[in-house]
Amino acid sequence: MRTIDWVDGNLLILDQTLLPHQERFLVVSTVAELAVEIRRLAVRGAMALGVAGALGMALAAFRAAERDEAVAPALIEAAEVLRNVRPTAVNLAWGVDQVVAVREAGVQTIVATALAIRDADIRSGRAIGARGAALLKGVRRVLTHCNAGALAGVECGTALSIIQSLNAMAELEIVYVCETRPLLQGSRLTAWELGRAEVPHKVIVDGAAAGLVVGGQVDAVVVGADRIAANGDVVNKVGTLGHALAAKRARIPFIVAAPEATIDRGCAVGADVPIEERDAVEVLEIAGKRVAASGSTAFNPAFDVTPVDLVTAIITEERAITPTDRASLATSF
Amino acid sequence: MRTIDWVDGNLLILDQTLLPHQERFLVVSTVAELAVEIRRLAVRGAMALGVAGALGMALAAFRAAERDEAVAPALIEAAEVLRNVRPTAVNLAWGVDQVVAVREAGVQTIVATALAIRDADIRSGRAIGARGAALLKGVRRVLTHCNAGALAGVECGTALSIIQSLNAMAELEIVYVCETRPLLQGSRLTAWELGRAEVPHKVIVDGAAAGLVVGGQVDAVVVGADRIAANGDVVNKVGTLGHALAAKRARIPFIVAAPEATIDRGCAVGADVPIEERDAVEVLEIAGKRVAASGSTAFNPAFDVTPVDLVTAIITEERAITPTDRASLATSF
Repeated sequence: MRTIDWVDGNLLILDQTLLPHQERFLVVSTVAELAVEIRRLAVRGAMALGVAGALGMALAAFRAAERDEAVAPALIEAAEVLRNVRPTAVNLAWGVDQVVAVREAGVQTIVATALAIRDADIRSGRAIGARGAALLKGVRRVLTHCNAGALAGVECGTALSIIQSLNAMAELEIVYVCETRPLLQGSRLTAWELGRAEVPHKVIVDGAAAGLVVGGQVDAVVVGADRIAANGDVVNKVGTLGHALAAKRARIPFIVAAPEATIDRGCAVGADVPIEERDAVEVLEIAGKRVAASGSTAFNPAFDVTPVDLVTAIITEERAITPTDRASLATSF
Repeated sequence: MRTIDWVDGNLLILDQTLLPHQERFLVVSTVAELAVEIRRLAVRGAMALGVAGALGMALAAFRAAERDEAVAPALIEAAEVLRNVRPTAVNLAWGVDQVVAVREAGVQTIVATALAIRDADIRSGRAIGARGAALLKGVRRVLTHCNAGALAGVECGTALSIIQSLNAMAELEIVYVCETRPLLQGSRLTAWELGRAEVPHKVIVDGAAAGLVVGGQVDAVVVGADRIAANGDVVNKVGTLGHALAAKRARIPFIVAAPEATIDRGCAVGADVPIEERDAVEVLEIAGKRVAASGSTAFNPAFDVTPVDLVTAIITEERAITPTDRASLATSF
C-alpha cells in the first residue's frame, strides 16, 4: 500500500480522513484538486507531503503537455498554488522546489524527477526498517507511540517500518500501540496499519505504557521523531518522553527511527525547538462532546523533548547513531 | 461540600453520575433506596462507601425506631442488603460491620457510631491535607492524576486535600490535572472539584505530564493510592508510575496521600497485588463511539505499581512515611 502514488498520469491518494473506518483511494487529476486534498488532510505527514509536492508538479507538467501548452509556466503557477496550501509544511515546499529546479528539462525529466523523490522516500523507509530490525534482532515485544508508519510517509514509514521488518522475521509476538491522546493517531492510524499488515498488536492508553515497560512486558520501545537536535535530543509527539524514561528504568532499548532530514543542525539542543501548543478543545472535548468540567481549561503541547541520554539509537536511512558515536551527530553536517 | 451526609434522619448524596455537568443532591430515606444509588455508582470510592455502609445502617435503625419496630433485626436485614450491593467493595462491608457490632445499643448509639465513622473520614482527609501541605510548603506548581479528592471520600479526600490545603496557604499557582484515560476521572471529577474550590488548574493529556515535569514546570507530584504494599510500593490508577519516573528524573517530590487503611500488610511488595484488567471497550471506544481500527483489540490494566524507591513520602492521617523510615512501614503492624 502507498499513501500517495503516480498511476498513468494521475495521482492515487489514500483518503486518510476516512480512516480507520473506511479505506478509500482518490484519483486526483489536477493541481487544484490536489490542493483541496492536502488542505483537508486527505494526505498528511512530513515525508508524504514532500512527495505530494513533487508529484503535484509532475501532474501540472503532464496536464500541460497533454494540452500542448508550455510546461515551465504551468509549473511556476502550480508551485505557487501548492506552496500556499499549507505554508508551514516545509517538506511540501521542498518537494515542489525539487521539480521547479528542472522545469525547463521537459515533461519526461520532470515526471522522472518527481518519481525519484517518491522512490527515495520508499527506499528510505525500507532502509530504516532493515537497519532497525537488524539492531533489534530477537526482540519479541515492542511498544510504539503515535503514527510513524506508512500513513506519515509513502509506503512503510519509519518506526512502523522497523516493526514490520521485525514481523517479517517471524519473531514478533506483540506490538503495544499507545493510543496517543489527544488526537489518537495510535488507535486510529497505527492500529489500522498493523491490522492491515497482520502484525499482532494491542492498543493501550498512554498511561499504561510505563507499567508494561517497567513490569518487564516490553523488549524495546520504537518511535519516530518530528525533529532531532544536533546533540541528539528528540522532539516527538507528546508522551514520547514518558516511554523513554520507562525504557531507561527497565534497561530496554529506546529506538528513534527518522530520516536524516529530521536532524536539524540549526538546533543545538532539544530545548531550542519551540513546542507548538494546540487548541485546548482537543483535550477538553472528545468526539465533539465536552468531557471536562465547564470552566476548566487545558494546556495542550503537541510535542515533548526526549534528552539524548535516554536514546539508545537513532536509526536513519544511512546509519544507526548510538550514544558512543553521538558526537558524529553534531559534526556530520 | 460532602459527597454523603446524614441530615435530619435522611442521607444526602451527591449524584456523581451527573458530574461534571450537573450538581444534584439526592435525599435517600431507606436502605433499599441507598442500595439502588450505590449500585448505579451515585456514591462511589472506597472511603465514601465505608461511610455509606455505616450511615445506611443508621438509616435502617432510625426508620425502625420511628415505626416502633425492633432495631436489631432491622439492622441484620439491612446489613444483608448493603453487603450484597457491591460484594467486592470491602470498605462498604467494613462500614456495615462497625454498626452491626453495636446493634443492641439503641438507636442513638447506633446513629452516633455511624456519624463517628463519617467524622473520622473527614478528620483523616483534613489531617492528610495539613500534613502534606506542611511538607510541601512553598510548592507552587503541582501535578496530580485521577481523582483522589472529596469525590472518592466524604469531604476533602487525600491528594486533593493536600492541594486544597496548599491553596489555602495562598501560594499555589497551578495544578496540572492529568485527564486519566480511559475513564477520564481527572478531567471529569478532579477538574470539577478544583473549579468548585476555585483552585487554579489546567487539564492535560496523561502523555503531557512527563514533558512538564522534566521541563521544570512542576514542583511536586501528588497522587492517591488504591493499595500500598508493606514495603511501600504504591498501587494506584494506571499512569501513576510514569509520573513517578518523571518526578525522579526532575528531582521533585513524588507524594502519595492515603489513609493508613490503604497499607496492606498482607502484600509484601507491589508485585503481589493482582492488577485488575478492565474491558477493552474503555480504550477502543470513546463516548460510545468506536475510535480504534476495527479488528484491533486492547489491553486495559486499571492500575500500575510505583516502586517505593520512586516515592518521596507517603502521607497518612497519622504520619509522613519517608524513605529514611521506610522500614517502619513494614513493621508497624
